Amino acid sequence: MIQKLIAGIERTGAPVVVGLDPMLSYIPEHIKKKAYEEYGETLKGAGEAIWQYNKGIIDAVYDLVPAVKPQIAMYEQFGIEGLIAFEKTVRYSKEKGLVVIGDVKRGDIGSTSQAYATGHLGKVQVGSREYTGFDEDFATVNPYLGSDGIQPFIDVCKKEKKGIFVLVKTSNKSSGEFQDRVVEGRPLYELVGEQVAKWGESCMGEDYSYVGAVVGATYPEMGRVLRRIMPKSYILVPGYGAQGGKGEDLVPFFNEDGLGAIVNSSRGIIAAYQQEKYARFGSMNYADASRAAVLDMKEDIARALSGRR
Amino acid sequence: MIQKLIAGIERTGAPVVVGLDPMLSYIPEHIKKKAYEEYGETLKGAGEAIWQYNKGIIDAVYDLVPAVKPQIAMYEQFGIEGLIAFEKTVRYSKEKGLVVIGDVKRGDIGSTSQAYATGHLGKVQVGSREYTGFDEDFATVNPYLGSDGIQPFIDVCKKEKKGIFVLVKTSNKSSGEFQDRVVEGRPLYELVGEQVAKWGESCMGEDYSYVGAVVGATYPEMGRVLRRIMPKSYILVPGYGAQGGKGEDLVPFFNEDGLGAIVNSSRGIIAAYQQEKYARFGSMNYADASRAAVLDMKEDIARALSGRR
Repeated sequence: MIQKLIAGIERTGAPVVVGLDPMLSYIPEHIKKKAYEEYGETLKGAGEAIWQYNKGIIDAVYDLVPAVKPQIAMYEQFGIEGLIAFEKTVRYSKEKGLVVIGDVKRGDIGSTSQAYATGHLGKVQVGSREYTGFDEDFATVNPYLGSDGIQPFIDVCKKEKKGIFVLVKTSNKSSGEFQDRVVEGRPLYELVGEQVAKWGESCMGEDYSYVGAVVGATYPEMGRVLRRIMPKSYILVPGYGAQGGKGEDLVPFFNEDGLGAIVNSSRGIIAAYQQEKYARFGSMNYADASRAAVLDMKEDIARALSGRR
Repeated sequence: MIQKLIAGIERTGAPVVVGLDPMLSYIPEHIKKKAYEEYGETLKGAGEAIWQYNKGIIDAVYDLVPAVKPQIAMYEQFGIEGLIAFEKTVRYSKEKGLVVIGDVKRGDIGSTSQAYATGHLGKVQVGSREYTGFDEDFATVNPYLGSDGIQPFIDVCKKEKKGIFVLVKTSNKSSGEFQDRVVEGRPLYELVGEQVAKWGESCMGEDYSYVGAVVGATYPEMGRVLRRIMPKSYILVPGYGAQGGKGEDLVPFFNEDGLGAIVNSSRGIIAAYQQEKYARFGSMNYADASRAAVLDMKEDIARALSGRR
C-alpha cells in the first residue's frame, strides 16, 4: 500500500492528503436541511449530512490528490450513525481510487492491539467466513505502550500489504510535555523515531517502509532531525494551514528524492468556502472551493520544494 | 461518577471491575450456534453472539461488583455490528446499576479530543437537539499528546460528572520502552503521574478526583510510588489474573483508607469456564463460572488487603 501511495503522489504531483474531519459547523446549510428533512435532527440525520458533505468533497478532489485521511473522532462523536458515515466515506474514497489513511490513533497491547489492527486494516474470522471491519489502507497508531502495541499492527500490515503511521512528534502546542522530555541527552521523540525506523525494517516496500511516522508541520527543525533518523519511513505531516504550518516549513520533512512526506490539510480544504479567500464560491459550491484550496496547497508545496533545489 | 464508583465499591466490598473483552473463542458454542442460525456467520451474527454472551455474564455478576470495563477494540474488530454490541453492552450494564468504564484509550488534540470526549462521555448537538453517542461513565485516555489531549476530556467530565483514567504505566512487558525512560533522574511514568495529579486537582469529587490513572498490577513497586504521587487519583489496575498479577501484588495500589484502586480482570472472569478450576460448570453454565471466579477474586483481594492491617 505504501507503493500505491507513492505512485499516487507521483501521478498527481501532490504529496497532499485531504483530512476529512467534518464538523457540523462546516457543513453547508442546504446539505444539513436536506438530511434533517429526511431523517430529522437525529444522529442519523447528522450522519447523512456528514456523508453527503464528504461525498461532494471527494468528487471534487479525487483526481488531484492521492489520499484522504478521515479523522474517526469526528464520526465517533455521533455514535453508531457517525461510524456508518465513516465506513461509507472509507468505501467511497477507495472506489474513487484514493488511498485511505484512517486517523484513528489507536494503541493498546497484545490481543487488544491485534483487534484494532484487524478492525481497521485486516480481516476478522466469523465461523468459516472472513470479513473486513472498517478496511482502511493505513491507520495512525499511538506508541506509548511500546512494541507490544505496535507489533500486532505490523503483523497485519505484512499480511494485508497495508501500513501504519506511528505518532512521533505531534503538531499541538503541548506535545512537548512528554514527547520533548530529555532522555540520556536526547528528546523522547527521537527515541520513538528510532523505534519507528527499527519497526519499519521488518516491513519494507521498495524504497520506503509500511511503517511511517506522524510529525507535525509546526516543528520543522525537529522534522529535519527525524527525517534523518527514519530515512525509510514516510512522514505524515499534520498542522499545515489552519494549525499554522506553511509551505516553507515542509521542506525538511522531504527526502532528496522529493518523496518521503505527505502533508495533511483538513479544515483549510474541507471548509475552504468559509474563508474570505474562497468566499466567492459560496456555500452551494463548497466543493469547488475545496478544489481551489487543494490546487493552491499543491502550488505552495511545489514552490517550497523547488526552492530548495 | 467517581462518587458512584466509590459507593459501589463500598456496597459490594469489591474493588473489582469485570473486563468485558469478548473474543469469539471465549463464547460457548450454544450461543454462537443460536446467533449464527439467526443471522448467519456474518458480522451481525458475531455481534449478536457477543451481546448474548455479555448479557449472561452481566446478569450473573452485577450484584457482586460495582463496574464493568468493555474493551472497545474487541467490538471494533467486527466493524459497525461489533460497535452495536458494544453500545448494547454499555446500556444494559447501566440499567443493571453498574458503572461502565469504556476502555477506549483514545487520545488526540483540541477539537478532535473534544469529539472523542463527546462521543464517549458527553452529549452531541444536532440542530436544536442533544444526543449521547456511546455514553460510558468513564473512559481510558492516552497521555502521549500532552495536556491539549486531556483538557477536552476534563471539560466534559466536569459538565457531565464523569471521569477518565489516564494511562500512566501499562501492564505489558514492553511498557518500559518509553514509559520507563529516565528524565532528569526519574522515569517518565512518574512525570505522567504528576500531571495526572495536577489535572485531577481541577476536577475533584469528595475525596478522590474524576481524573484517575491506569497502572498495571504487574508493576507493584512502581504502583507504590505512583500511589504516593497521585494520592487523590483512583488507580485502575489491569493485569491481575491472566496477565500474571496476584492478590498480594495489589496492596501497594490502595490507600490506607482501603480505597483508591479498582482491579480489572477480563479473561480470568469472562472465560472462567475454560479454566480447569471452573471446568465443572461446563459451557452451558459459563456465567455461573464467571460468578464463582468473581467471588474468588474478591476473596483473594480481601485477604491480601487484610494482611497489611
